[in-house]
Amino acid sequence: MLRPCIGRFQHVVTPLLPPLSACPISRPPPLRNMSEAKKEEAKGLTDAEAREACGEPDASTKDFIFQQTMFRIKDPRVSLDFYTRVLGMRLLKKLDFPSMKFSLFFMGFEKAEDIPSDPADCTAWTFSRKATLELTHNWGTENDPEQSYHNGNKPPQGFGHIGLAVPDVYKACERFKELKVPFVKEPDAGKMKGLAFIQDPDGYWIEILSPKPMVTIASTDWS
Amino acid sequence: MLRPCIGRFQHVVTPLLPPLSACPISRPPPLRNMSEAKKEEAKGLTDAEAREACGEPDASTKDFIFQQTMFRIKDPRVSLDFYTRVLGMRLLKKLDFPSMKFSLFFMGFEKAEDIPSDPADCTAWTFSRKATLELTHNWGTENDPEQSYHNGNKPPQGFGHIGLAVPDVYKACERFKELKVPFVKEPDAGKMKGLAFIQDPDGYWIEILSPKPMVTIASTDWS
Repeated sequence: MLRPCIGRFQHVVTPLLPPLSACPISRPPPLRNMSEAKKEEAKGLTDAEAREACGEPDASTKDFIFQQTMFRIKDPRVSLDFYTRVLGMRLLKKLDFPSMKFSLFFMGFEKAEDIPSDPADCTAWTFSRKATLELTHNWGTENDPEQSYHNGNKPPQGFGHIGLAVPDVYKACERFKELKVPFVKEPDAGKMKGLAFIQDPDGYWIEILSPKPMVTIASTDWS
Repeated sequence: MLRPCIGRFQHVVTPLLPPLSACPISRPPPLRNMSEAKKEEAKGLTDAEAREACGEPDASTKDFIFQQTMFRIKDPRVSLDFYTRVLGMRLLKKLDFPSMKFSLFFMGFEKAEDIPSDPADCTAWTFSRKATLELTHNWGTENDPEQSYHNGNKPPQGFGHIGLAVPDVYKACERFKELKVPFVKEPDAGKMKGLAFIQDPDGYWIEILSPKPMVTIASTDWS
């Protein structure tokens, strides 16, 4: 029986995560009110239906960019080390809000020489970059042994992961293993070969993929 | 008293969301075991400490890109309309996995003429683009009135939002209002003027910002 609430990785053994049945259920499973027959009948959109659902972008949106993805982190020392030394991003800008006791760390794959040294220029430049990761640190969480964040893959679900495209998934993952990065899925685990999932220090999932091998992976119906 | 679990928007009135006290608490508040004194003492990293926590990116990571951010959506017809017609993204690639009853919709700010027409080329191209949004549709959720996804801003918290940089926050938001997009924060609400938060059809938060005005916003300590 499929478990639609788990999304695309219901079939993957995840030794580092508790089985879903062990997770605290804080809301009813998504499909509880759908009959088995209805679940069986469920269909996705056809290509034509998907095309039809899309509107033409308005001219006023032509310079919009997807600038940031934000999640909260427990300990910035640990996360800064992970995102720079392990994943290869750089700290583009740090912003502090002392009266509200939080700081923001903007991370991205940018060259060191492109980061402006003038603080104001650096802020404007950072917010003009595509694909930055905004890490929010609420001061003090790093000292609370009880505190942790929710990665979105156990109930209640929503956000799933971020993903990096790398030249060679196997080489990248060999290095991650040497660096003791936890894996949700190793490249050759499960049926989808050549695609991996690691976890950041807060447990957020990070997909590791390469564009060309995705052609085969994406065109196979993995049952 | 500060409420660190709410992150950067504890001060913003959010008429479209229930107050935090009305939210179901599915795990203990983050700082329950920290004394008030400890909370008061909590400090963020200094600039020097942040620099010190960062490692130098390894040469093997130089071609890594931040390729995708994935979240689950209830109804692809509604989300495709929103992300294309309202926000100006395009559907770059749709991938179906019938035996597992889910589909993926990759969205991005790309030109129509750049999207390859050959399906395999389009897959490889999509996964080589920075800053795509991967929308996961578990088939059937759109027909279940009880089903909804968690946007990460009520407990249990984690992921917070995605963000778009736009040429003019006020103009963009005028248009969003005309299109009946729900706001978490209008540009002039609260103290941080010139910065807005809207919600997508599943309730995920989307920050709307402009790079230059962020210089002032980011250098002010909003108490």
